[in-house]
Amino acid sequence: MNDNLQDSAAVNHPPKPAGNYKPWLIHDGMLFISGQTAKEQGAIKYRGKIGETFTLDQGRAAARLCATNLLAQVGQALSNDFNRVRACLKLTVYVNCDLAFDRLPEVADGASDFIVEMLGEKGRHTRVAVGAAMLPGGSSVEIDGLFAIA
Amino acid sequence: MNDNLQDSAAVNHPPKPAGNYKPWLIHDGMLFISGQTAKEQGAIKYRGKIGETFTLDQGRAAARLCATNLLAQVGQALSNDFNRVRACLKLTVYVNCDLAFDRLPEVADGASDFIVEMLGEKGRHTRVAVGAAMLPGGSSVEIDGLFAIA
Amino acid sequence: MNDNLQDSAAVNHPPKPAGNYKPWLIHDGMLFISGQTAKEQGAIKYRGKIGETFTLDQGRAAARLCATNLLAQVGQALSNDFNRVRACLKLTVYVNCDLAFDRLPEVADGASDFIVEMLGEKGRHTRVAVGAAMLPGGSSVEIDGLFAIA
Repeated sequence: MNDNLQDSAAVNHPPKPAGNYKPWLIHDGMLFISGQTAKEQGAIKYRGKIGETFTLDQGRAAARLCATNLLAQVGQALSNDFNRVRACLKLTVYVNCDLAFDRLPEVADGASDFIVEMLGEKGRHTRVAVGAAMLPGGSSVEIDGLFAIA
Repeated sequence: MNDNLQDSAAVNHPPKPAGNYKPWLIHDGMLFISGQTAKEQGAIKYRGKIGETFTLDQGRAAARLCATNLLAQVGQALSNDFNRVRACLKLTVYVNCDLAFDRLPEVADGASDFIVEMLGEKGRHTRVAVGAAMLPGGSSVEIDGLFAIA
Repeated sequence: MNDNLQDSAAVNHPPKPAGNYKPWLIHDGMLFISGQTAKEQGAIKYRGKIGETFTLDQGRAAARLCATNLLAQVGQALSNDFNRVRACLKLTVYVNCDLAFDRLPEVADGASDFIVEMLGEKGRHTRVAVGAAMLPGGSSVEIDGLFAIA
């Protein structure tokens, strides 16, 4: 596990839900995390479509920010005891993109690289990356996740 | 739990699958519900894109209708014994929307509000809301769900 | 179970991941399979949008190819001992489609029919089919899956 994980500001300030849902929920050793957008300090930082408003590299940064928020929610759920994480089972990465932008796995790697960087081998997950017609608040990326916990 | 739940016509008439799949499936205390569109009495009631054909309020009504169908499938799976529902774990809300319509959480709340209204605290779930390029039969919303059952 | 299952070339040559993720992962009797595109021998065979570049029938063939790759990953996870499959619990079928193409369940049946053909009654699953703005590498279909295993 990366020493920076518990220190990150995001871990201490996970985004509030954008509607009538829970940011996380635990059931039978599984931790469900609701879709996290590219928010920083309460506002969407990357608002627009990849391939149109944003470049691939900006898309990767947006995905990394979503992943930061995912782990912030994991921290909330586990009182920041990240040792309880057994595995990141699955990420679904939605990319708000131009209808011709197909480098979605490279965008999604911005999130996957961060999760692996923070959690190590336990962070290696299954994934699907897809293009969305639009995302909440215009976010360029949104990611939900499923973790196994002790 | 809401007394109207078992009485609703929808509970007694859940939509038939639109293809070669099961409307619901139980595995190890988890109840998977296939994607439910905005169907009423066998026909799609809200056919078109939110932000184009339909307003936000109509989108919320469409989402509520999808949620009605979700609970109708839950009822089928549990022989209408809704006391067996332990939790609504997760909803994935797909919104067939204009490429610039970003108020997806407000649309999705049409479904989430209904689930919480019907199931109470056990209905509070995690969620992701995303914009889709199109949905089955042109439905303006489609929702799948995962429930924990006793 | 279909006798052709273990013989299929695809079972022996599942596609490599397109990014920093695992093609499959087992947790607590559940086998998660990452999103599989319409790849054959390492290259995307159906690259383009259904309803635009491809017809419905081609979309069905693309979905079938994705399902072939899904089962190839299942084979990898289980050392090709498909008897360990207890159930296909859920497929999420993403269709890269024209913004007006709404016959998504018919496209998705290309995958569902194949899974049932190969696994028999155990292959009958829940499903959601949605239209995507774009998919990895321009694939016309992408599918992820969840299986229960012994």
